[in-house]
Amino acid sequence: MTEIPFEARAAAIRNTLEGQGFTRLVDAEVVSIEPGVVIMALDRRPEVLQQNGLFHGGVVAYLVDNATTAAAGTMIDRTKRSVITAEYKINLVAPSSGDRLTCRAEVVRPGRSLTVVEAKVFCRIDGAEKLVAVALATIANLDLKTA
Amino acid sequence: MTEIPFEARAAAIRNTLEGQGFTRLVDAEVVSIEPGVVIMALDRRPEVLQQNGLFHGGVVAYLVDNATTAAAGTMIDRTKRSVITAEYKINLVAPSSGDRLTCRAEVVRPGRSLTVVEAKVFCRIDGAEKLVAVALATIANLDLKTA
Amino acid sequence: MTEIPFEARAAAIRNTLEGQGFTRLVDAEVVSIEPGVVIMALDRRPEVLQQNGLFHGGVVAYLVDNATTAAAGTMIDRTKRSVITAEYKINLVAPSSGDRLTCRAEVVRPGRSLTVVEAKVFCRIDGAEKLVAVALATIANLDLKTA
Amino acid sequence: MTEIPFEARAAAIRNTLEGQGFTRLVDAEVVSIEPGVVIMALDRRPEVLQQNGLFHGGVVAYLVDNATTAAAGTMIDRTKRSVITAEYKINLVAPSSGDRLTCRAEVVRPGRSLTVVEAKVFCRIDGAEKLVAVALATIANLDLKTA
Repeated sequence: MTEIPFEARAAAIRNTLEGQGFTRLVDAEVVSIEPGVVIMALDRRPEVLQQNGLFHGGVVAYLVDNATTAAAGTMIDRTKRSVITAEYKINLVAPSSGDRLTCRAEVVRPGRSLTVVEAKVFCRIDGAEKLVAVALATIANLDLKTA
Repeated sequence: MTEIPFEARAAAIRNTLEGQGFTRLVDAEVVSIEPGVVIMALDRRPEVLQQNGLFHGGVVAYLVDNATTAAAGTMIDRTKRSVITAEYKINLVAPSSGDRLTCRAEVVRPGRSLTVVEAKVFCRIDGAEKLVAVALATIANLDLKTA
Repeated sequence: MTEIPFEARAAAIRNTLEGQGFTRLVDAEVVSIEPGVVIMALDRRPEVLQQNGLFHGGVVAYLVDNATTAAAGTMIDRTKRSVITAEYKINLVAPSSGDRLTCRAEVVRPGRSLTVVEAKVFCRIDGAEKLVAVALATIANLDLKTA
Repeated sequence: MTEIPFEARAAAIRNTLEGQGFTRLVDAEVVSIEPGVVIMALDRRPEVLQQNGLFHGGVVAYLVDNATTAAAGTMIDRTKRSVITAEYKINLVAPSSGDRLTCRAEVVRPGRSLTVVEAKVFCRIDGAEKLVAVALATIANLDLKTA
């Protein structure tokens, strides 16, 4: 029984994310996928902003939702299980200005049925990264036969 | 000193929401704005889905973010104050299938500096509304001079 | 195969709650256990207050933790499964004054592996109930053999 | 105008925490108070456990509530403002066994009106610290005249 190498699993996660209709609409980028850590980002353009020219909170939440779930997904055998977002909390701690929004999600504790993931979201402003949101997510692992 | 009638305030909130670049990208609709209650919705199309043909969690979060903040915004005098999302938690309780996604946000308790808002999100499946997400949000009121 | 009547299941839940060391220390009361709804309460005394004479936030959280988990527990077959708190969020929306604190937890959606529960906490002040906290919890169901 | 030294402010926070009726009942300890970081702990005894001999979730929440609020309190001028817990979310990620429970709360971002604080809770088991809970809190700053 051969285990699937992490590179192949990461490629499958990337394909899933990039193939989502909403990811294409938002035009987000999968920056990197490592065991337990996923980074996603998107560049500023008028279509992802709110009325004051800041990145929309819904865009921040989109990144958190996808990056946390994908980070949890790096911990499972995708031939036997899948991951779905059970819930998350997000604190918007500063105005999301700047030219690029980046979310870094990291698994706090993988579990058999639930994986807890933290995320931090940063804006790049004049070349410096500023923290704009913090999140805490619970991702459920489903057995493929029962999903 | 004349108070602004609710209809005018509701129209201003609607204009703000509909003018957001991200709202246009997502193509969401402001269904109704009443004191303490805001309903937003959007129809199914491939651009708002994830890989399994369900509404993307980021779309659900977008509706929650906007509807809860707008609901809090109905409680304030917008000539003196503004509202921003401080944080929210969202539980995705069932698969977001169906042909239309609707979020109903309702103020639980308005406060001077913080307003707490609940939201429920429903999918319309074969004409019936099914609960797919529950959320709880904290919206901050800012004095316009200090905002 | 005989199903255990709800009354017997409710009695077992009550025994579990009342037998907890911490429940005895806090001196909380299980007011009622119905399918999907559990109410717990405790009376004011100096040992459950904070520095300003309000019920301590930790006491509010204790009620939420126990009542939400017990409410989820009413939905399962306790001979085969058990419930544990996965996570919850609590908003403290008003000062917890008054002479009695009551938490009402109600299942929003029972699931096979996760049950989502809402809770509201009230203070009795001069005979009237005032909302002081709102919570949203995720309770995990564990199969007894794998727990 | 002389600023109050941090040592005096930390002593005032410690006195407040240790003077709470509920802190005495729980018999918790303020381990340390540094700018932006507060550590609290308590030792295992039957009165703080649940039915399976684990630390009760309400005890974990008590530590999170107090330590996060106190951490936010280290960032303000207590002669002009006070802090209250607006909300928090807690994930219980592993069974709270062991002989001592410790919560470390650290400010993520202090704000004028809201301060966001993260907390991690550990159990000491056979001398090693194991992560059992993660939390994310929003603490409100109140001007003393309006509080």
